[in-house]
This record gives sequence, structure tokens and C-alpha cells, in this order.
Amino acid sequence: MTVPIRVSVGSGAAAYPVLIGAGLIETLPALLSELAPAHRYAVITDENVAPLYASPAVDACREVGLDAELFSFAPGEASKSRKSWSILTDQMLDAGFGRDSCLLAMGGGVTTDLGGFVAATFMRGIPLVQVPTSYLAMIDASVGGKTGVDVRAGKNLVGAFHRPHLVLADPLVLQTLPEGERRQGLVEAHKHGALLDADYFDWLAENRDDLLAANERVATEAVRRSVELKASVVTDDEFEGGYRKVLNLGHTVGHAVEAAGDYMIGHGTAVAVGLVTEARAGEAMGVTDVGVADRLEAALSPLCEALPESVTAQRVIDYLGVDKKAREGTARYVLLSRVGEVAAGEAWTHEIPEPVLREALDGVLALR
Amino acid sequence: MTVPIRVSVGSGAAAYPVLIGAGLIETLPALLSELAPAHRYAVITDENVAPLYASPAVDACREVGLDAELFSFAPGEASKSRKSWSILTDQMLDAGFGRDSCLLAMGGGVTTDLGGFVAATFMRGIPLVQVPTSYLAMIDASVGGKTGVDVRAGKNLVGAFHRPHLVLADPLVLQTLPEGERRQGLVEAHKHGALLDADYFDWLAENRDDLLAANERVATEAVRRSVELKASVVTDDEFEGGYRKVLNLGHTVGHAVEAAGDYMIGHGTAVAVGLVTEARAGEAMGVTDVGVADRLEAALSPLCEALPESVTAQRVIDYLGVDKKAREGTARYVLLSRVGEVAAGEAWTHEIPEPVLREALDGVLALR
Repeated sequence: MTVPIRVSVGSGAAAYPVLIGAGLIETLPALLSELAPAHRYAVITDENVAPLYASPAVDACREVGLDAELFSFAPGEASKSRKSWSILTDQMLDAGFGRDSCLLAMGGGVTTDLGGFVAATFMRGIPLVQVPTSYLAMIDASVGGKTGVDVRAGKNLVGAFHRPHLVLADPLVLQTLPEGERRQGLVEAHKHGALLDADYFDWLAENRDDLLAANERVATEAVRRSVELKASVVTDDEFEGGYRKVLNLGHTVGHAVEAAGDYMIGHGTAVAVGLVTEARAGEAMGVTDVGVADRLEAALSPLCEALPESVTAQRVIDYLGVDKKAREGTARYVLLSRVGEVAAGEAWTHEIPEPVLREALDGVLALR
Repeated sequence: MTVPIRVSVGSGAAAYPVLIGAGLIETLPALLSELAPAHRYAVITDENVAPLYASPAVDACREVGLDAELFSFAPGEASKSRKSWSILTDQMLDAGFGRDSCLLAMGGGVTTDLGGFVAATFMRGIPLVQVPTSYLAMIDASVGGKTGVDVRAGKNLVGAFHRPHLVLADPLVLQTLPEGERRQGLVEAHKHGALLDADYFDWLAENRDDLLAANERVATEAVRRSVELKASVVTDDEFEGGYRKVLNLGHTVGHAVEAAGDYMIGHGTAVAVGLVTEARAGEAMGVTDVGVADRLEAALSPLCEALPESVTAQRVIDYLGVDKKAREGTARYVLLSRVGEVAAGEAWTHEIPEPVLREALDGVLALR
């Protein structure tokens, strides 16, 4: 393999590297020995990724004398729970893992969030290596140190910030990812472009087919550019006090769309609806340049799945009242001024009057 | 009340104040408004402390217009569990608490650990105010940012570091603490003296009766000196990478004694056994000055309860093999060179040969 690309997240002693390179996963044992030395390695993964990558990785580690053990859970968002977290923690304790262990979370966003939360709370925190295997996890979940699980009251409401020690992203593994998941993940890449880099936004649309095929060159380039963009935001504001909240672009409405769809629709589709809806509302308010919503819609609709009938404007508006970012009272929204630039607003957010939001939602939902 | 004593823990932007003062709890609403402003306050406490202090504090907050709500759990170590943590988290979510909330943990060590872990993981962390109401919680649990719960495999094996925003210690509340708990807590104060300050160690023994009565002046002085000593260690090494482990003095053996006693004996008694045992072993090894163990025993035995017959040298030695600090292999011990000074050893710890440990344990356990 070629020399991996290295992107640094954070600053000073708290910085950690994201290594990006096709074939990187083949060199996992050597990378761990060099960059994350530990007495033992616990590899957490789901039952889909276990036979494909995690189990071979454990075998490869053992061949070079590393003490590695596999802990797997049933795939799917339902496993991102306190129950799975308890079970995995107890399994590691029963197997005698201690403070001198390192936890590898290998998989998509569910695994990086769930495994990350196990690492964050195991004996008050042990080193974490993230090995994301989906577009979404590579470009989003693995950068920023967020870990957590879902609870009855909502997604990601229990968790911790826990910086990984190291992130290893091998775009070649995207070729075994179901195509639907590749589509969903690429929505988040478009969000990075829409927020910060109009050229990248256009490049993503131009290279859509190659990106969906996980062509080595373009997939590596997309992961690199998204990780760099997200890292630039997270490094400025690690604990989400201020500027980092621009990453919520499309997500305030998006989370409500997910809830209104009973979490049966893809995260990417929900965020795409959120991005276009928020842009339409921004245009109506005179905050967002006219034409932005059409440009987002043209780029994103080829990536989206059909929305179920349960997603109505009224249900989305109802859920916006209970979004966790809205608990202080009114929901607030990140809005673009144009593609590649966030409108400053008040601390990077705006209110959207309900009639404006409703009209924007009606317009977007009419298209399904 | 008089102006509170202020001890700063940590350095730079991460520092937080511990305020110590008789009557401090009476001024809680004003202190919260000034030093921990928040949209809403969740007060977590056990059912013993609720009627005494927490419920009146919630009422007082409401009287001045603060939005405060009480969440209580059954008293006792059994509540320091993932189950209680889940229930309290869900209750707060159901009550609509959000990221703009502040959590007050008011009670003994179980409450500060459990409530602290709720705060650490609620929406990835919300501000925490610790209001310790026992000697142990005031001088130990509230300094250092450790939070956590017990699991089947052992105590405190799941948790997080979460710095409090503010700690409020009112020594007057110690007067309503059961005397047995005062005794147990004072053992930890002696540990601070044994580690770092021989004068303080002697002062504690000289003032034992007044300390046990929670006399306002001496109790305030003990809390201040212990907090200052512990803060000096924690500030140097917040995440327990090195020097902080000296605080484990007496605790390596102590935790095994607790386990051997099926967690039916007080933490202080177990730590006292640990302190004296480790000192006797240190003397036998030529690391600890002769006479230290006798001096510790004379000071500590008046504070201890009787040990059950289940605590045998063999059971303690067996549990030492599974102590969480020993998972890398052999248990290691912090040893004194003399009262007030830790022996450097290798990274502040030593091995103790099993025959030496056994003889030391036999000697200490023969005294019951």
C-alpha cells in the first residue's frame, strides 16, 4: 500500500491522527504496535463486520504476538443501547481486560459510537482506536470524539466525549459496504461541502458514480477532504460550546424527520431533507441566497431513498419541539448564506418562524 | 456565616473551586446563581439526605426563582449501579432536562459517584456541582473528578472522569451524619496525613474526639487540610498517569479486604487494615521506617469497627489477584518511607513478596 494520508484533529497534546489509506487495514497489527501499544486489545464489532474484517484482524494481531480478542454484537441501531454497552463491558471484565488495554471499535457509526462509549467508561476510560468501515463513520463519526447510545427519550442522549488515540480509515473496505449505506454516508460529505467548501460540494456531485462505486482514488479523496473539513471545525471547538454547532446544519430538521419516520429511514435521507428544508426556509427569510436549496436538492436527491407516508410536516414540527438541542425552549437552526458559507446569525444559529418552516417542509415533502 | 475557605483544584481554565464553610448549605441558591448559573437544576440525592438537606435546598432555590427538581434513590452502596444511573438519567430526560441544565449531587460518596456519572454521561456531559455531606465525600470523593458505579466484576469499574464545576462542603452537616460514618471517613483523612503531612496526621489523632463530634472548628480545619493535600496531588496528575497513584496508599490491600468481607464492612475500616498491613510489610522489606505501622495502628484502631471472620489472610490474598489496579499482572503497592513521606519505588509503587504480605496480614488480622 501507499503511505497513508495523515490528518491531525485537535491541537497540542490532545491532538490525534486520522490515517487514511487504501489497504491500511492490512497493516493493522504493525500500526497498533507502533502507534497504540497496549498490553491487550479488545476488538468490538458487529456480526456483519466480524467475518469480513474484525476476525481476520484479530488473527493477524495474534500472529505477530499481540493479545487480541473479539467482542461482537448484533448489527443495527437497536444495539446502540445501554444494554449492549453493559454486556460488552461485562464481557471485557470477565475476560480480564484492565486499564492497560486498548479498545478497537471496528465498524459503522453504531460501532464507533457504542464501542467508543465502552472505552470512555471502562475503568473511567481506556485508549480507543477507531477503525470506521462506512463512509458515514469515516467522514463523520470518527472525528470529534463523540460516543454514546440511544435511550427511550431519543438518540445519542447518553454518552461522553472521548478522544480516540488513533483513527484508521481504509477506503477499500467501502467496496463491501451495501450501496444504500454508501449513498446515505455521502449526504454527510455534501454537508461538509455546503458548510465550508463549495468546490468540494461540486466535486462530490461530479464524481457521484465513482464515489458510489467506492473507487479507490475518489473515495480516498472524499474521506480526506471531509475529515480535514470536519477536523478544522472540531479543533476550534472540541466540546461544542460554539462554532462546532455549525455541524448541525441539516440535522435539526433531520433528527425530527428520523423520529417522524420512526427511525426506519436512513440518516442520510433524513439529513438531506433537513438540508434542503433549512435552505428553503433560509431563502424565504432572506438569509440564504436564492438558488441554494435547488442546488442542494439536485445534488442530494440522487442519494436519497423514498420517504414513508408517516413523515408529515406536522409530525416533523412536533418532534422539533423535543429535539435535544431545543430543550432550552425554541429550536434553533444553522443556516447557509450560500453554498460553502454559514450565515453568522446569533452564535451561528437562527430561529425559523413556524409558518416559514411549515411551507419549506411542505415543499420538500411534496416531492416524494 | 463566615466567608468560605476556597481551595482550587487543577490548574488553568480547568481549575474548579472547593468552597468550605460552616453554614454554606444555607446559602446554596445564591451560590448557584452566582457560580453555577443554569436554566434548570437537577438535584440528585438519596432518601436519607432528601428530607434533611436536599428537599429544603430545592425549596429554597424555588423561592428565589430557580427551576430545581429533586431526584432521589434508595440509600446504600447497592444503588451505585448502572440500573440506578439509567433510572435517574431517564427521569431527568422525562422531566425535560437538557444540555443547559446543571446537576447537583448532594450526599455521601455513593451520591457523588453516582450523580457524577449521570452528569458525565447526560447528553455527553453537563455541569456538575458536588455537595458532599459526609467526611469521606468532602475530603475524598469530591476532589479529583472521579465518577462511577459498581458492576458484578467489582467496584468502580465503570465510570468517567468528570470535573465538577464547583464543590460546596458545609462541615455543619456532618453533625447529622451517623457517628459510624464519621469514623470511617476520618480514616481517609489520616491517609492524607500519612502520605504528605506528618503534622496533620498527629493533629488528627490529638483532635479525634472533637472530629468525631464534628465540632465546627476542627471539622472545618480537617476538611480544608485534606482537600488541600488531595488537591495538590490531583492537580499534578489529573488522569492518574503517575504520581496520583500515591492516593492508593492502603487501598490496594483495602479493596481486597472489602471484597473478602463481602462489602459488609466500612470502607474506612478496610483502608485502615490496608494502611497498617502495607506499613508492616514495608517495614519488613526495609522500605518503611520501623515504628510507622505502630503509629498508624494507634491512630486508626479507635476509628475501626470489628472485622468479620470471613476476612482471612488467604481470602484477602486471593482478591488481590483480581484488583483492577493489578490487571497487568502482579499487584503493586504504594509504601511509606515514613509518616508524611511516600517511598519513591518504581513509579511510586513496589511489589510485596507474598510471604511478607501474608505475615503482615496475619499480624493485623490477629488483633481483632
